[in-house]
Amino acid sequence: MTPPVIALVGKPDCGKTTLLEKLLPELSRRGYRVGTIKHHVHEFAMDTPGKDTWRHKQAGAHTVMLSSPTGIGLVRDTDHDLGVEELVTRYFGELDLVLAEGYKRTALPKIEVYRRAIHPEPLPDRDDSWIALVSDIPLAGGLPCFSPDQVAAIADLLEQRFLPPAKLPMAAAPPAITLTVNGNPIPLNRFASAFLQRGILGMIASLRGCEDPQTIGISINNRPGNE
Amino acid sequence: MTPPVIALVGKPDCGKTTLLEKLLPELSRRGYRVGTIKHHVHEFAMDTPGKDTWRHKQAGAHTVMLSSPTGIGLVRDTDHDLGVEELVTRYFGELDLVLAEGYKRTALPKIEVYRRAIHPEPLPDRDDSWIALVSDIPLAGGLPCFSPDQVAAIADLLEQRFLPPAKLPMAAAPPAITLTVNGNPIPLNRFASAFLQRGILGMIASLRGCEDPQTIGISINNRPGNE
Repeated sequence: MTPPVIALVGKPDCGKTTLLEKLLPELSRRGYRVGTIKHHVHEFAMDTPGKDTWRHKQAGAHTVMLSSPTGIGLVRDTDHDLGVEELVTRYFGELDLVLAEGYKRTALPKIEVYRRAIHPEPLPDRDDSWIALVSDIPLAGGLPCFSPDQVAAIADLLEQRFLPPAKLPMAAAPPAITLTVNGNPIPLNRFASAFLQRGILGMIASLRGCEDPQTIGISINNRPGNE
Repeated sequence: MTPPVIALVGKPDCGKTTLLEKLLPELSRRGYRVGTIKHHVHEFAMDTPGKDTWRHKQAGAHTVMLSSPTGIGLVRDTDHDLGVEELVTRYFGELDLVLAEGYKRTALPKIEVYRRAIHPEPLPDRDDSWIALVSDIPLAGGLPCFSPDQVAAIADLLEQRFLPPAKLPMAAAPPAITLTVNGNPIPLNRFASAFLQRGILGMIASLRGCEDPQTIGISINNRPGNE
């Protein structure tokens, strides 16, 4: 199951990142695993110039990864602007919630951040996908309107509308099984996940070297000509 | 099918990254999509301090992504040092080849880089997984030994030994199924191979996205605590 995605929208410098910096610790404290996506239409840069991974990328690697015991970093080419659904399915599958910066022109549920001190007006194109406003002055319009400091109340709203209570106490384990077909990750529900995992464990159980399988990797080439 | 992974190993500052900087453009020029993984056992840092995505991560996001029309960047937490098989299955499925820096203590095929000007001796623990040496002086040992400038010859070796037959006429087809358990390749006879392959194809046949499975990658984490 892919997590819900909420977009934070607003004019430049309105405080989206600052709001995220307050919301993320609040949601972590409540036990949720939260991811973020920043949509960036200009020059792309994530890695630090001069580092080995940066040098790999500069030299033409399609995908570059840094892997450590506590985290991984990945930079890869894409041939188009990937949709947020595709990104979430592929990279955020096991999280509870994704908060996106940008993506104003999508149907994602949106929280608009507004700062009177910077802009005379909020965004002009508010529509039904707006679910709340975060503003330094009260705004009319029939939507819940929070001040940027009401972090717990904003987290409450996200929890009530998007986060299933059943998930509350659990900090989830990583997915026990991942499946890719033709290079694309296939989402697995609990049933399919357990079915595949148990089926494969059963099939390999009697093979030599498989007495205590902690991690299993399988790759199949089903192209014509292979058997 | 997951791509082959070759590890570049060698003592610190022996020239692994410099070799990669020459090999990557050569392999790209030949039409291959190549990824890299750098294994890093110390402090993890990929993003640039102060940037929005870095601020998201600092604030406690589990996974942070920057998405643009030409590329994506991803930084995420892991609760352990992920195995190279799992990383390749999950993130490198559609590439032709992965070149890894590090991973000396795995069964991956290895190319050792050595620089006499920096270290008195090459690595002491060469074993059967070594496939070639790249050195500024000739090294004995029965393995192909290249100078760091023989980039085309090193690419030839990788092509001949590891790159898919579709791009290399006359080479043998790769095995239709490979199985690794706890990081070790498990030999499969014809019966076990066909049994596993057909069993898995049958199990995934009704999943959405699996209508025409050409290549399949599966990774299972069967450690206690995962379900």
